[in-house]
Amino acid sequence: MSFSFFKNYGPFSIFEILKLLNINSKTIRKKEDIIDIKDLSSSSLKDLTFFHSKKYKDIANQTKASYCITTNSLKNELPKKCIPLIVENVLFSTSLVTAKFYPESVNDNFDENVTNISETQFKAKVKFGKNVLLGDNVSMGSNCSIGHNTIIEKNVSLGNNCSIGSNSIIRNTLIGNNVKILDNCVIGKHGFGFFPNNKKNIRYPHIGIVKIEDNCEIGSGSTIDRGSMSNTVIGRNTFLDNQIHIAHNVKIGDNGIIAGQVGIAGSSVIGKNVKIGGQAGISGHLKIGDNVEIAGGSGVIKNVPDNSKVMGYPAKNIRQFLRENK
Amino acid sequence: MSFSFFKNYGPFSIFEILKLLNINSKTIRKKEDIIDIKDLSSSSLKDLTFFHSKKYKDIANQTKASYCITTNSLKNELPKKCIPLIVENVLFSTSLVTAKFYPESVNDNFDENVTNISETQFKAKVKFGKNVLLGDNVSMGSNCSIGHNTIIEKNVSLGNNCSIGSNSIIRNTLIGNNVKILDNCVIGKHGFGFFPNNKKNIRYPHIGIVKIEDNCEIGSGSTIDRGSMSNTVIGRNTFLDNQIHIAHNVKIGDNGIIAGQVGIAGSSVIGKNVKIGGQAGISGHLKIGDNVEIAGGSGVIKNVPDNSKVMGYPAKNIRQFLRENK
Amino acid sequence: MSFSFFKNYGPFSIFEILKLLNINSKTIRKKEDIIDIKDLSSSSLKDLTFFHSKKYKDIANQTKASYCITTNSLKNELPKKCIPLIVENVLFSTSLVTAKFYPESVNDNFDENVTNISETQFKAKVKFGKNVLLGDNVSMGSNCSIGHNTIIEKNVSLGNNCSIGSNSIIRNTLIGNNVKILDNCVIGKHGFGFFPNNKKNIRYPHIGIVKIEDNCEIGSGSTIDRGSMSNTVIGRNTFLDNQIHIAHNVKIGDNGIIAGQVGIAGSSVIGKNVKIGGQAGISGHLKIGDNVEIAGGSGVIKNVPDNSKVMGYPAKNIRQFLRENK
Repeated sequence: MSFSFFKNYGPFSIFEILKLLNINSKTIRKKEDIIDIKDLSSSSLKDLTFFHSKKYKDIANQTKASYCITTNSLKNELPKKCIPLIVENVLFSTSLVTAKFYPESVNDNFDENVTNISETQFKAKVKFGKNVLLGDNVSMGSNCSIGHNTIIEKNVSLGNNCSIGSNSIIRNTLIGNNVKILDNCVIGKHGFGFFPNNKKNIRYPHIGIVKIEDNCEIGSGSTIDRGSMSNTVIGRNTFLDNQIHIAHNVKIGDNGIIAGQVGIAGSSVIGKNVKIGGQAGISGHLKIGDNVEIAGGSGVIKNVPDNSKVMGYPAKNIRQFLRENK
Repeated sequence: MSFSFFKNYGPFSIFEILKLLNINSKTIRKKEDIIDIKDLSSSSLKDLTFFHSKKYKDIANQTKASYCITTNSLKNELPKKCIPLIVENVLFSTSLVTAKFYPESVNDNFDENVTNISETQFKAKVKFGKNVLLGDNVSMGSNCSIGHNTIIEKNVSLGNNCSIGSNSIIRNTLIGNNVKILDNCVIGKHGFGFFPNNKKNIRYPHIGIVKIEDNCEIGSGSTIDRGSMSNTVIGRNTFLDNQIHIAHNVKIGDNGIIAGQVGIAGSSVIGKNVKIGGQAGISGHLKIGDNVEIAGGSGVIKNVPDNSKVMGYPAKNIRQFLRENK
Repeated sequence: MSFSFFKNYGPFSIFEILKLLNINSKTIRKKEDIIDIKDLSSSSLKDLTFFHSKKYKDIANQTKASYCITTNSLKNELPKKCIPLIVENVLFSTSLVTAKFYPESVNDNFDENVTNISETQFKAKVKFGKNVLLGDNVSMGSNCSIGHNTIIEKNVSLGNNCSIGSNSIIRNTLIGNNVKILDNCVIGKHGFGFFPNNKKNIRYPHIGIVKIEDNCEIGSGSTIDRGSMSNTVIGRNTFLDNQIHIAHNVKIGDNGIIAGQVGIAGSSVIGKNVKIGGQAGISGHLKIGDNVEIAGGSGVIKNVPDNSKVMGYPAKNIRQFLRENK
């Protein structure tokens, strides 16, 4: 996480953090300021990070964070310089701390501070439709167009030659050059991330953004959620068809071709030059290699190595699938 | 069906009903007023009900309705006090009678009688965006917010602390407290219910509502249709992700967690604490028990007992599915 | 392709075409004007057509076009009167020529030339909501209604008794009588058609339209893309449920019943009286016969003959599927 649109209200002293997490530490005695909370790989000295699954032990091993929220059974994977804060539920505790650093990232109500574009400086440089609304901290390059009733809420940057359709809603999103976003899209909302609780689920903060790189196209009716602790990324020259759902923290490489109604669940990472047929679904936290082809309608539930073609549910080698399903 | 937003134009005499249904009865001679048309379980004395499938014989057995539209082969399942009206096509006849009682439930054109919220009493108590429209018979609790371009059409009640996103359209819906509805949703439209006819299909009336209970969240781009003769219900603290479709008469229990792009077909009943993975589909008229987990991408075509985990298409026990599909 | 809303900038001389395609022909010496570019079956004398796959050889055989963009290996399928223009990539070359004839069909930015309906001649004859926008070349029959925030962009014709919902966007579409289009639909945008290119994909022109015939209903949140070289057609009295995606060039016959979240990929042709269950997907370039039933959740990857019932992924005979999947 190298970038957030949300204001960091830190630093906070480690003692404040311990208190928030209800940790009664005898070993941590030195008052130190914590600057930020970040994921394992992007943390630096004086940052706090979190480590909740063995899956990430290779990254945990190398974190540069000064402190890490983790469990008793995982703490030994951390480098010696990183002091573990032992908790019951890593993600829940992380969420509490994140909300302290970034309180504005929890609430995703509509943006009240918008202005009709015709009353802003952009009216001279952008082609725009009726009833276009812009929030704070919006920037746009040259030669952009924005369709009717579209709302560019706070924290959006558009490059040059971007075309946004009508009735779309965008927030917390960095958009490159030559990007097209068609009608009725919702981009940059928080993801479907919360802690289930039988009385009232507890949402966790989403401090990440959506990043849409140069030359991409996003089809009508698509939804792309912003990241929680990292970003959601659509790589350069990747085209998405209509009614696609990209969940939080997903990263798609360059030159992807993704057909209608595909869904990619949270935190999955898709390589370069990947083709995904219509209605295919990819489970969360998977790694799909480069040059992979996923047939339409497939359900991918495990990692797919580079250069593979898969099909079926669960998706397997396409030749095998077709042989078994004549 | 204990509640409808639609005006009941009854009572009508049983002779009017017989005439409408083209029934020439010799046994029904007493002029009696029919107060309402309801489903088997919610009917009372002087109501008319309908019974079209053996599946419902246990409920038919105990109906309190005075009359029942049914077929010759089903009529003997009814209690003696309930007089059968024998027809060829139960649902079609029911539809004719329902349209007579509730003529306003057939047409779902846009609501012409809306007012900009800034011209209503709500402007003082609600946070609202640009171009928010409100229909007749709308109520809202304290501390609600409604995003830009959202249309709250007629017959909507919001509790306290509700947050509605932008570009959403809601009608005929009862919403509890602490409910969040994100952007671009369509809630409360009639369902996909009609009688196929080779020249021109005939829509049947939808007199039900959508009920969204306390603490729910509905993701962006979702559609929830109102019930036809009963209600569509989203139970307390149930969270829906983006692009979900909930058809008419579906009932979802409390604490559900339903991931992106799931579809639930008409009249299915989902228990409490049910988790449904992304893109899963549930056929119509099914019963899914409590504490059930349905894996992403599954296609459920039969009832699922309490506490089961299912996967696949057709969905089966998850262990069996994974063993068979290595 | 018998109809396009886009302006034909032709005729162009055959020499201009040859130059554009970088063909150095020694046999074509006569200066002749090319009037139009059309598909194989609708071309007439002095038209240019294209032929890129053996699948179409029976139609190629009978084309009336004077010239045809094709490959060395396919050229012998053409009638003698039709002069082949040999290229490497037929579709790419066709796209270049189409963009020359119809330059306005490439760009799908929002329609800048819209007017609020209350400032047009339609205000007297149409029921309309707030903020309804109309583009150029729009016509409407009697007794139509258009919901709030809906944008009827350029090149749309509505018949009599049509009801359009709110927040929908329509362009390049011919709509018959008694058609209902619900909320949040996007109809008539270009399809997901482009030539993949590792730096920047190249979109090809979509000169076709969407044609929605009498008595149809289109559910909320649906997207229907217009055709590229032919039209996208929804046949008479066909009903689509919510969140359906119909890709470019798809043709659906009369009396279709298509349940929620179905997706039909490009250029597939669906017969009459076809029923498709929820979330089913149909691959591109397939032929589905008349009276076919496709079970919900199915993935159809090959042609389906008339009167069949299919289920599964890949879809097969429904009895066989259910027997194999107990």
